[in-house]
Amino acid sequence: MCMSDIRKIAVIGLGSMGHGMAVSCLRAGHVVWGVDVDQDRVQAFCREGGADGALHDVANRLDAVAIVVVNAAQTQSVLFGETGIAKNLRPGAVVLGCATVAPGFARETAVQCDTLGLHYLDAPISGGAVKAASGALSVMLSGSEAAKRAASPVLEAVAENLFDLGAEPGAGSAMKAVNQLLAGVHIAAMAEAVGFAMTQGLSPDDIARVIPHCAGTSWMLENRLPHIVDGDYTAHSMVDIWPKDLGIVREIAESVGVDVPVASTALAQFREASARGWGREDDAALVKLYAQQAGLRLPGEER
Amino acid sequence: MCMSDIRKIAVIGLGSMGHGMAVSCLRAGHVVWGVDVDQDRVQAFCREGGADGALHDVANRLDAVAIVVVNAAQTQSVLFGETGIAKNLRPGAVVLGCATVAPGFARETAVQCDTLGLHYLDAPISGGAVKAASGALSVMLSGSEAAKRAASPVLEAVAENLFDLGAEPGAGSAMKAVNQLLAGVHIAAMAEAVGFAMTQGLSPDDIARVIPHCAGTSWMLENRLPHIVDGDYTAHSMVDIWPKDLGIVREIAESVGVDVPVASTALAQFREASARGWGREDDAALVKLYAQQAGLRLPGEER
Repeated sequence: MCMSDIRKIAVIGLGSMGHGMAVSCLRAGHVVWGVDVDQDRVQAFCREGGADGALHDVANRLDAVAIVVVNAAQTQSVLFGETGIAKNLRPGAVVLGCATVAPGFARETAVQCDTLGLHYLDAPISGGAVKAASGALSVMLSGSEAAKRAASPVLEAVAENLFDLGAEPGAGSAMKAVNQLLAGVHIAAMAEAVGFAMTQGLSPDDIARVIPHCAGTSWMLENRLPHIVDGDYTAHSMVDIWPKDLGIVREIAESVGVDVPVASTALAQFREASARGWGREDDAALVKLYAQQAGLRLPGEER
Repeated sequence: MCMSDIRKIAVIGLGSMGHGMAVSCLRAGHVVWGVDVDQDRVQAFCREGGADGALHDVANRLDAVAIVVVNAAQTQSVLFGETGIAKNLRPGAVVLGCATVAPGFARETAVQCDTLGLHYLDAPISGGAVKAASGALSVMLSGSEAAKRAASPVLEAVAENLFDLGAEPGAGSAMKAVNQLLAGVHIAAMAEAVGFAMTQGLSPDDIARVIPHCAGTSWMLENRLPHIVDGDYTAHSMVDIWPKDLGIVREIAESVGVDVPVASTALAQFREASARGWGREDDAALVKLYAQQAGLRLPGEER
């Protein structure tokens, strides 16, 4: 990489997705600052090659800021809160909004950035922690040509699939919401199908053996069912992601006056699982809701 | 094929699945009688090489009868109704029950067959018309070893995947119900996601371009979404299949006292689509329910 291709990048939010993206940017040869409320995460990233120094000292030299936090409120706070970074960025820098947010929020944030001379790219991500770490995410992006151009070194470093949804911020977030609607419903359907099957004497392993070869399969079933078969609910993606993301789906739907009854039913199931104390477990733990109701013993559970 | 491997087989029900299975049995070298209430279908099959002659005249020479009708009531009628075939079959012949039925029905039918000296194989099928015609179905089978042995020439002719779910009739039908629960919910989720996406300015084509590469994909989405993109609702699998099959799912669930809220919500959507007159269209037409509510114009619709 020639020196002029090296970019100064900040990744804000070093959870499993943000950390993976930050590492992917390092691997591509960029100078990367990692930012998180958890200082252990920041120091761990520094040991992996992350740049030293307080963000505010370097903000006006940054080319790009990827915001990989949990939701719209955190995105807003990171950019425009009391210690927000937006006012310290140089004009022409690009902000990548990677959290799952409502399309309207993405549009408003783009306008706010524009008034400061900043580019905003609506850039929600999909693919999970493993793909984040290997630079193989899918990014559903929308925004101005200038924003896309400014963001391209980051996108090239972190993504395998770039889905360009046009010039209007919000379209990327809308597609992310579509993906989350489907993914959330598919997890709920999988959990429901496993509980149902077990009442008929079929095991999770029977389902894992048959359904991936049949019309009833889904990416989520193939990815999450093994967690149930193994009785391992170590959180790769938590139950509590879904009340948030399906909540965004329903909020968007309500704002345009349409019903999403299937997604709403899945949302109610995730909320109930969270209320019963499984919120921090892997989202495959939704099956426990069905098992509890039916008095079933899942793989790995004590008799 | 040596003469001793040639079997005499009847396929009862020459819809898209039964016809494909009958043709696959012919291709494998067997002598095959096709039976249907629609005489045009029977004659068309005879022209393709199907054997001539009334079923009752040949019943006592048959080795196997595959019942590929719509539901349990038709299966019962074909076997044990006034003109039912079971009493005319020779002891040792095998009956393959291929309709989607409740596991309890499969168990009862097996007992009824047993009293006549007939083998019964619980053998619901999955894969669609194209795979039926090419001998590439998936069969979820359960039953005695004798039933499986007797049915194997038919299974080899029609199936690419054989999923053996044990010795107890009903297990195959339970797995079929699991598959239908998932498949039905996935179609409903796809239709809901398309309607939702269109309210946000995304097109069905946008979804088809992005989601198959993301965690929100399913076999059903990849198979059915092109019908919406093309605006072509020629029935490959009808909307009206789902009130029936998801109805069976709910009936089974109720019989063991568990809830299937996600499947029940999908069921309600299919019933509503049927009530609005789209029952005979391809099941992707469920999207019309969402489009109508939101005042959206789907691909192929007039302005």
